[in-house]
Amino acid sequence: MNEEKKLQTLAVLVDNEAGVLSRVSRLFSGKGYNIESLAVGTTDNPKISRITVEVITDDRQTLLLSNQLRKLICVHSVKLLKPEHSIRRELVLMKVLADTSEKRNEVIQIANIFRASIIDVSVSSLTIAVIGDESKSEAIEKLLKEFGILELVRTGMVALERGQYTIDEQTKEKGEFDYGKNVL
Amino acid sequence: MNEEKKLQTLAVLVDNEAGVLSRVSRLFSGKGYNIESLAVGTTDNPKISRITVEVITDDRQTLLLSNQLRKLICVHSVKLLKPEHSIRRELVLMKVLADTSEKRNEVIQIANIFRASIIDVSVSSLTIAVIGDESKSEAIEKLLKEFGILELVRTGMVALERGQYTIDEQTKEKGEFDYGKNVL
Repeated sequence: MNEEKKLQTLAVLVDNEAGVLSRVSRLFSGKGYNIESLAVGTTDNPKISRITVEVITDDRQTLLLSNQLRKLICVHSVKLLKPEHSIRRELVLMKVLADTSEKRNEVIQIANIFRASIIDVSVSSLTIAVIGDESKSEAIEKLLKEFGILELVRTGMVALERGQYTIDEQTKEKGEFDYGKNVL
Repeated sequence: MNEEKKLQTLAVLVDNEAGVLSRVSRLFSGKGYNIESLAVGTTDNPKISRITVEVITDDRQTLLLSNQLRKLICVHSVKLLKPEHSIRRELVLMKVLADTSEKRNEVIQIANIFRASIIDVSVSSLTIAVIGDESKSEAIEKLLKEFGILELVRTGMVALERGQYTIDEQTKEKGEFDYGKNVL
């Protein structure tokens, strides 16, 4: 096992119920791991939510964490998404200071280069939405810092495996989630 | 106060530290509120994370919740983002079954109409990224369900106020966060 610590992405299918997120996040904080990012939302099945969580751990810690997650009754499935086999994306909203038409034009040009959308405009600011991995959002953030970032919010990463593989493909055959306990 | 329950969006600035998310989410689950969506990521200040949380509550419960959040030492600021004055967006990744060139073309056409991006392709599937509010993501999800959704992950909503207002504008003047305790 590799003892080097690196950013790991875990996809966790859980019951969409009160208290589940708190139980899952307590498991991380109890071990002193700081969650780099976490996003939770319902899936195409409204009873099931999918938590995408990124932590900096080594392989042994990741295995330990995923085994502990699987012990929780509210957890149906845990999968480690390896960066080389997955697509990771986050959404970042940035409100940028742009109080002259020259500045507005420059900001719009930068947004176009990054295929970002302008989602709001006021006399002194523009709000931009951009999706990408961290290298893309860091690059646009760095450029827009020159103008002044008034406010920034990011969703945290979500990830899917490349190709037709899914975290729950066996589930759909069996109509049950119990398989997932040994997917990692 | 309005006793009607509705979807409320809270933006919470917190320390970027282990255990903070767990403390915040426990506060919701302790009261039995189910979190509809939650997204957490760092802001332009790497020491500060921003949690966007959506819950279905009435006005009294929202006030209670935000006052309890403010009592936590790790919480710097809480703001209720009213839908009429904010921009809410989520990112949804969908892996769709498309195993013939006709189906692929149809899926690509739908993606183009919704200004969604194709982020991965395999012999039997396409993966699509779309940003929008829930009405947009529900609309595209409904159309793509006809083809078969293999896997779906959403980030949860993030939100910024419209115009030049920010949750932390006073912060930047004072270099402190304590103002935020009575922003709601």
